[in-house]
Amino acid sequence: MDAFDHGFLSGLFGDTEIAALWGADAQLAHMLAFEGAFSRAMGAAGRFDPALANTAAAHIAGVRIDPSQLRDGMASDGVPVPALVRLLKSGAGDAAPAIHAGATSQDVMDTALALTVQATTDVLDGRLAQLIDALAQLSDTQGQTALMGRTRMQAALPITVADRIRNWRMPLIDHRARLDLARAQTEVLSLAGPVGVTDFNGVAAAVAQALGLTAQQTIHSDRSGIVSYAATLALMSGTLGKLGQDAALMAQQGLDELALRSGGASSAMPHKQNPVLAELLVTLARFNAGQAGLMQQAMVHEQERSGAAWALEWMVLPQMAQATGRALTAAQELVSMIDRIGTPQT
Amino acid sequence: MDAFDHGFLSGLFGDTEIAALWGADAQLAHMLAFEGAFSRAMGAAGRFDPALANTAAAHIAGVRIDPSQLRDGMASDGVPVPALVRLLKSGAGDAAPAIHAGATSQDVMDTALALTVQATTDVLDGRLAQLIDALAQLSDTQGQTALMGRTRMQAALPITVADRIRNWRMPLIDHRARLDLARAQTEVLSLAGPVGVTDFNGVAAAVAQALGLTAQQTIHSDRSGIVSYAATLALMSGTLGKLGQDAALMAQQGLDELALRSGGASSAMPHKQNPVLAELLVTLARFNAGQAGLMQQAMVHEQERSGAAWALEWMVLPQMAQATGRALTAAQELVSMIDRIGTPQT
Amino acid sequence: MDAFDHGFLSGLFGDTEIAALWGADAQLAHMLAFEGAFSRAMGAAGRFDPALANTAAAHIAGVRIDPSQLRDGMASDGVPVPALVRLLKSGAGDAAPAIHAGATSQDVMDTALALTVQATTDVLDGRLAQLIDALAQLSDTQGQTALMGRTRMQAALPITVADRIRNWRMPLIDHRARLDLARAQTEVLSLAGPVGVTDFNGVAAAVAQALGLTAQQTIHSDRSGIVSYAATLALMSGTLGKLGQDAALMAQQGLDELALRSGGASSAMPHKQNPVLAELLVTLARFNAGQAGLMQQAMVHEQERSGAAWALEWMVLPQMAQATGRALTAAQELVSMIDRIGTPQT
Amino acid sequence: MDAFDHGFLSGLFGDTEIAALWGADAQLAHMLAFEGAFSRAMGAAGRFDPALANTAAAHIAGVRIDPSQLRDGMASDGVPVPALVRLLKSGAGDAAPAIHAGATSQDVMDTALALTVQATTDVLDGRLAQLIDALAQLSDTQGQTALMGRTRMQAALPITVADRIRNWRMPLIDHRARLDLARAQTEVLSLAGPVGVTDFNGVAAAVAQALGLTAQQTIHSDRSGIVSYAATLALMSGTLGKLGQDAALMAQQGLDELALRSGGASSAMPHKQNPVLAELLVTLARFNAGQAGLMQQAMVHEQERSGAAWALEWMVLPQMAQATGRALTAAQELVSMIDRIGTPQT
Repeated sequence: MDAFDHGFLSGLFGDTEIAALWGADAQLAHMLAFEGAFSRAMGAAGRFDPALANTAAAHIAGVRIDPSQLRDGMASDGVPVPALVRLLKSGAGDAAPAIHAGATSQDVMDTALALTVQATTDVLDGRLAQLIDALAQLSDTQGQTALMGRTRMQAALPITVADRIRNWRMPLIDHRARLDLARAQTEVLSLAGPVGVTDFNGVAAAVAQALGLTAQQTIHSDRSGIVSYAATLALMSGTLGKLGQDAALMAQQGLDELALRSGGASSAMPHKQNPVLAELLVTLARFNAGQAGLMQQAMVHEQERSGAAWALEWMVLPQMAQATGRALTAAQELVSMIDRIGTPQT
Repeated sequence: MDAFDHGFLSGLFGDTEIAALWGADAQLAHMLAFEGAFSRAMGAAGRFDPALANTAAAHIAGVRIDPSQLRDGMASDGVPVPALVRLLKSGAGDAAPAIHAGATSQDVMDTALALTVQATTDVLDGRLAQLIDALAQLSDTQGQTALMGRTRMQAALPITVADRIRNWRMPLIDHRARLDLARAQTEVLSLAGPVGVTDFNGVAAAVAQALGLTAQQTIHSDRSGIVSYAATLALMSGTLGKLGQDAALMAQQGLDELALRSGGASSAMPHKQNPVLAELLVTLARFNAGQAGLMQQAMVHEQERSGAAWALEWMVLPQMAQATGRALTAAQELVSMIDRIGTPQT
Repeated sequence: MDAFDHGFLSGLFGDTEIAALWGADAQLAHMLAFEGAFSRAMGAAGRFDPALANTAAAHIAGVRIDPSQLRDGMASDGVPVPALVRLLKSGAGDAAPAIHAGATSQDVMDTALALTVQATTDVLDGRLAQLIDALAQLSDTQGQTALMGRTRMQAALPITVADRIRNWRMPLIDHRARLDLARAQTEVLSLAGPVGVTDFNGVAAAVAQALGLTAQQTIHSDRSGIVSYAATLALMSGTLGKLGQDAALMAQQGLDELALRSGGASSAMPHKQNPVLAELLVTLARFNAGQAGLMQQAMVHEQERSGAAWALEWMVLPQMAQATGRALTAAQELVSMIDRIGTPQT
Repeated sequence: MDAFDHGFLSGLFGDTEIAALWGADAQLAHMLAFEGAFSRAMGAAGRFDPALANTAAAHIAGVRIDPSQLRDGMASDGVPVPALVRLLKSGAGDAAPAIHAGATSQDVMDTALALTVQATTDVLDGRLAQLIDALAQLSDTQGQTALMGRTRMQAALPITVADRIRNWRMPLIDHRARLDLARAQTEVLSLAGPVGVTDFNGVAAAVAQALGLTAQQTIHSDRSGIVSYAATLALMSGTLGKLGQDAALMAQQGLDELALRSGGASSAMPHKQNPVLAELLVTLARFNAGQAGLMQQAMVHEQERSGAAWALEWMVLPQMAQATGRALTAAQELVSMIDRIGTPQT
């Protein structure tokens, strides 16, 4: 139970599109995609019997598994893969030996993660592009309005609305570039076997190609790519938190630099219009900042694989993805609600 | 979507009992309990028409609201209370004026939180007591076995299993005392009105009594009590993380100081027995430690109430409660699975 | 090198009084105090030769050691105590066997820490008391001025300056009570020997009494007391961060609710008066919040003593003490600079 | 006072080379370099009187200022620059108007920071290269030794020492690439004037060239570059923390996979050899992970410049640089102390 899918908090925090990408169904589909591509590539390379491998791949492609079937195995094994493999093999008949053999749980899960991250990056990048456009339009229409530039929360010298918007918008353009760079580190096949030393040669390339990932040397215990991705998510929500903080400050009576078409109601004071989305952006920024620190804690793996450090990612990263996704939609909504921005013209 | 209620991760991380306490249904029930007690007490004090107040309270007691009905209001208002109050009033007929008037959203939500925390403390305390007993039993049966004392991860001097268990168990006893102390800071009615200055006099005492809380001066922007509670939760999971770290180290081949009746399977290496629950305890400890830092960030409220800082609590605290709860059940399971503990007797 | 003692940053961040309490000289003095009291008590209990023990204690009382003499030992041993003990024994002649024997590094360092914390608590408590008084005086003189109550950064309903000050002041009174409670958990002798199982019986009571600490069961690996203390420090700086945030918001042109006798100059804009101390309070609050999370990470000790987790405290806690101390002096300065507070009277 | 320069803790934690780069002397020198280059470039562009500008630059180049002279100004202004500018102007005679005019404190401080980061990156990169070499040499000499591969802290399947070393070494190579990428984001001139909208045209290019930085659009409130740099530092210390954790685990009796030429002594147990540097690496990794989260909190600037968020960087980043630098030297020392690595050959 979290704020993203809570019975009513989700109304404010929820991001169903991102949540679906990180949900059990999508992850299971990714794990099955890995297993199918793996069987097929191992067959093509002659490391599995080719006919059995194709049978296995077809079986995997057609199998129907509910995530809940993995729950008990997750509890006892600490990963869902042994249970998944047992299910796959149990229905595969003679083809069972051409399933999963040689791969390890982390190969499956980290590859599934790579696919989830890829889809997430696609969505976030699209939202960034939209928001960048929306800010450009706002600047076009209201950018010439005067605005008091403020430093250290004090009036300093006049600027324009366009100047302020530029400070919100330019970092978002940089974040798109950061996301793009992150693809090379995150959209990567994981395939190295139980202790990370199995040589899969051409198999890795084939699996990677089938899944739309790149093949490069897998080091299960090196979490730099995904931790760096988390840092980038926090930069994004951080920039949006700054936008939100500014919006909340601008909406203050006495400054009156921002008028929204509608704001939140108060249960006690019907006259108030609360800058709910602006505050939400600050909340999400602070949330993600803390989580980014936790992802860094997950760098300290023991030996070839740490169950403890690895599982910390599963608790933290999906939350960060949802928070970042929601920050983008909230910023988009907030910008679209701006009726007037800048120092009131008298 | 989080690890606690994820389609399959929940098998390892889930704590349905704690999750229910923090879920929308329970929170809504608590909010209704507040509104009912408030109407009744305001009526008794003559601040609402007594007859209307009783009608209102009866209406509130019988109302059927689904949490999803508050979702849109949550999105627009940033809190669920205005939508809730609209629903309550809309069905209350003439009694509508005897509902909520004078209270504010934070009164409702923080009081509901106090009730949730109270129930959580009850559960956690019960689990602590059980675990303390289980460790005492383990010490009784296997405590006299020799164990190499280790400092800085090096063999130092011999101790006994009882010594090690004492180091796990004594802090848990202290944590029960800490939880008990925390009750005075957390099981408190929130009632101060829109900007925290309404004088409710005897009304507060009556509402508090009806709800099983204490009445004391409400300062909406002072989060010390709940932040301190979060710190205590992290202490608890921290102690259990230490226990888990020890168990994982003891289970190493070469040390062989711990044999579990069953451990997690590996998808690649059927001979392995992974100390899944031990690692989980470390994960949960590190998770909560990071979240405790975020709760401290939520201390910085603006003026009479910060939407941004307050909402951060809603994202963080339920996760901490679930992580702490799960750490306690996981530790209990782990202890119950111990087949042999101590230096192997040859 | 940190902001507290940096060549020029220290002008803003420095707290020389607290820094001295956490400095090497004070810690060394505390370690020597422990060693002296330990020799004497062991002699009195007949566990050291009484005459040699007195000679040893006298030697320790008169010894002159510069902290830098422990630096190499710190590097090689990871703790300063072996080097210290070598120095003490080397000058003690026949009394050398009556020095430190039976104790362990953590006994010495944690006891020294307890004495440092005790002195820190004394200073912080005194500053809290002063600040509470200063706020009371401010309320007495300017409390009746009207002030717009603000929630979610929006004007809500009128309150008075006294109401706002109460919200700053009451939590500080609670923090004094928290500090007082913390004494029982932190002002405690550490004495348990190399792996925490040595029975020192009456010796512990005698050493504790000599040092002004309490004796209770020592569990080297249980960091709850000191981690909880860190949480309390963060609560204190958090409350002051809220005060600072409010002050910075009140000082905004357009709100004009706070006029300071002097604020910071701008290198570019001589007309500006920056609310430097108000911002500093926010900075220190956010800093300490993050550090409090790190202290929670230090709960996960391995076995009888973790070098890794323990050393994390040495990096984090002194910074928190200094940040908290500075927050108190900065708040005091800020309050003393208030020329006018409240909605401008026209 | 921090562990890096503490009277005796510095023996373990200190990194004098990095500390010097972040010290007041170096920062002051960088600030003066900025002011000199700025005067000269403004003169060349005709925005200052060219002759006066050269006089000013010469004056700045020859001025002797002690950091302590900026301390009072730092306290009152919240930044050292107004005091610095006053000092520079006061000795510059007629050339005073050709000093700093048009620039703002953040231009000076962020440019000085860029120069500090540049020097830091140079040092860290050199140390990374050395460590990568040292690990390669270790792999060359002892890589063929067998080692039990371990996952989830359990023996899994045999690998070689070379495999383990590869897992330590490859991420370090990636970190060099990350550091190199970071240069484009951090080695950047800051020049935008009081509220970030001054157009300095060719002046910026000239100042940047003089200082060995690049000129690009300055957004004072966008901290992405420096926060991302901090994340990279934490990745580096994270990888080294993993190396340290492994080393500490390998050094355990019972595993005996690592023998060091010397380890730390125990005050109570002369027979023990503690893996002090291995533990230190874990400590530094956890420290930096937490600080990286705090740097992310510093993203939320208000308006054109936040004093509160900005100052948080000054508290956190120098510590991260020192911790990262020390992690690299500690890892180098640790590797050089390895006498034997791998499963003992019987």
